[in-house]
Amino acid sequence: MYTYDYLFDFTKNVFIKMGCSEHDSDIIAEVFLAAELRDQASHGMIRIKEYYELWKAGRINVNPKVRIVHETPSTAVVDGDNAIGMVTAKRSMEIAIEKANNAGTGWVAARNSNHFGIAGFYAMMALKHDMIGICLTNANPLVAPTFSISRMMGTNPIAVAIPAMNHPPFVADFATTPIARGKLAIAEKKGEKVPFGFLQDKTGKPSDDPTILKSGGSMLTLGGDRIHGSHKGYCLSAIVDIFSAVFSGANFGPFVPPSVAYLPVLDKKVGEGTGHFFGAMRIDAFQPAKEFKAKMDEWIETFMSAKPADDEKKVLIPGDPEREAEKRNMKDGIRLVPAIKEDLILISGELGIEFS
Amino acid sequence: MYTYDYLFDFTKNVFIKMGCSEHDSDIIAEVFLAAELRDQASHGMIRIKEYYELWKAGRINVNPKVRIVHETPSTAVVDGDNAIGMVTAKRSMEIAIEKANNAGTGWVAARNSNHFGIAGFYAMMALKHDMIGICLTNANPLVAPTFSISRMMGTNPIAVAIPAMNHPPFVADFATTPIARGKLAIAEKKGEKVPFGFLQDKTGKPSDDPTILKSGGSMLTLGGDRIHGSHKGYCLSAIVDIFSAVFSGANFGPFVPPSVAYLPVLDKKVGEGTGHFFGAMRIDAFQPAKEFKAKMDEWIETFMSAKPADDEKKVLIPGDPEREAEKRNMKDGIRLVPAIKEDLILISGELGIEFS
Repeated sequence: MYTYDYLFDFTKNVFIKMGCSEHDSDIIAEVFLAAELRDQASHGMIRIKEYYELWKAGRINVNPKVRIVHETPSTAVVDGDNAIGMVTAKRSMEIAIEKANNAGTGWVAARNSNHFGIAGFYAMMALKHDMIGICLTNANPLVAPTFSISRMMGTNPIAVAIPAMNHPPFVADFATTPIARGKLAIAEKKGEKVPFGFLQDKTGKPSDDPTILKSGGSMLTLGGDRIHGSHKGYCLSAIVDIFSAVFSGANFGPFVPPSVAYLPVLDKKVGEGTGHFFGAMRIDAFQPAKEFKAKMDEWIETFMSAKPADDEKKVLIPGDPEREAEKRNMKDGIRLVPAIKEDLILISGELGIEFS
Repeated sequence: MYTYDYLFDFTKNVFIKMGCSEHDSDIIAEVFLAAELRDQASHGMIRIKEYYELWKAGRINVNPKVRIVHETPSTAVVDGDNAIGMVTAKRSMEIAIEKANNAGTGWVAARNSNHFGIAGFYAMMALKHDMIGICLTNANPLVAPTFSISRMMGTNPIAVAIPAMNHPPFVADFATTPIARGKLAIAEKKGEKVPFGFLQDKTGKPSDDPTILKSGGSMLTLGGDRIHGSHKGYCLSAIVDIFSAVFSGANFGPFVPPSVAYLPVLDKKVGEGTGHFFGAMRIDAFQPAKEFKAKMDEWIETFMSAKPADDEKKVLIPGDPEREAEKRNMKDGIRLVPAIKEDLILISGELGIEFS
């Protein structure tokens, strides 16, 4: 078990050693640790190795100048200058919030960025401003559209955070695939199989092997198969891709620069880096904030009162499981699986910092 | 087989007989027929009976004053004055487009409305303005959140329309359930079963009976079960509900006024009528429109080139199947299943108009 502070300081030091500023390293460590606390370990410490490899390969800029390249009263396009994703993303969401303050809503598309951790982190930034926050991003091309065996899209998540009054906020943060890619990586590290319905091999045959992506397999979209609505998951993933990359001028679909070693770095580029999309909507652009938040309390209480099919499994409000995990992990500590620990020991050795 | 014009004129006359203006009846018939043309018959002529029943029950206003009740540079809240949904929705989307012209983006939440037909119709209104269109709505409470047997949400669709240059636009329009509710109604009219994974009975047991909704059963969310991501479908449906109803002041979740006879009209109200949400985003608020549309062509060509798992089943671009259907149905005519035809003959008799 590790304490939050121990892993935060370690993570921050890793990025400082790579040459990031103290300010940027703070942001990066904050997002990594938010993932660990929220039981989204698939986006936590397991990913440090990916960033480290990208850095060693000279593929990320540790001294970026993140800047607005185009804007209107309610929109902006941001160039991340090939920053580590967290740095582009936090600044972009701040800009969306500033825009919303003036125009009611703010919408920012970012290009020339990299993997940014959990989308929910940025969506939740809006909450304390009495705004709704939205965050989308494209990602490693590993997902096949309905009827296809080609890896054309990422797990392209959608995060939406909506404030309430006395209840905690509604926070949805989910991949547009049945499962996040990082959860396959964790199953692999544990040597486990995964349920059918997540993956197909390179010929399109259903697979339960979490390593299948390394041999040309692909992930399926939410819905699983055509009968059960996989084309809807494909639509969602495609919308996230277009908003993140075509709005911003980033690489779309199969051209997203990979952050995993088993995907090739393509010569062909159709834009700059990875793309994200951020939205902030001032509640009082629609309803007085107090009335809206009281109504959200009523919404939450209504859904909490839904009758469970099985009395052991309560109906949840989006954000509940992550909040419970946050409290538990902050108190009890954060567990790392042995294979991740080994990766971090290796990296700490190479960078000359302490980790045990 | 019926021609487009025959069904358009009949539909228009039905609503004129109910007391709608010529202008409003035109809009209503246009949306009904768009659904029939696009093979979304689940939202076409089959629904006329529902509107007719609502009208007979005095539950819709055929002379509404649709008006803005609150606004900022990029947002508005519209009160539909209990209009037939199409009338509220078309006006609301026009307002979103006006807002986007001025502020870059426009966002309109509408309350006190009713069922509006296909969401895609309104999203597509943005296309000719070089804008992206978005449309959401809540609907009859028939869908159970993950782990629940309570009917708390509608099939709450999401529509997004994105223009391209030489290719037809990208148009996604889908329920956040594996299947639209109207498709169950069609299976019922045909006396057919449906695949497992769409429905559960009132105790939570999987069902293949499309009439199960009439005996307390519920629809499942996209994903089907928890393992395969039904909680993501629940999140999507919930987001659509909150944007449509809590932003606007409409009834949310289980309180949405039913448009089907087998759901009770509740005494409890938490807002006004059904709620919708509309978005329009000017492309050049992000990128020069020409560059964006050329990039969308490249996106579409990239996805068209995805390798099919089975050579008989081409990878589709969202909007393709509906466009093909549009051409075919305009040319060959529109077929109505016998049970729908009977409904329409009954209505035509009662209203004293011609239908055969």
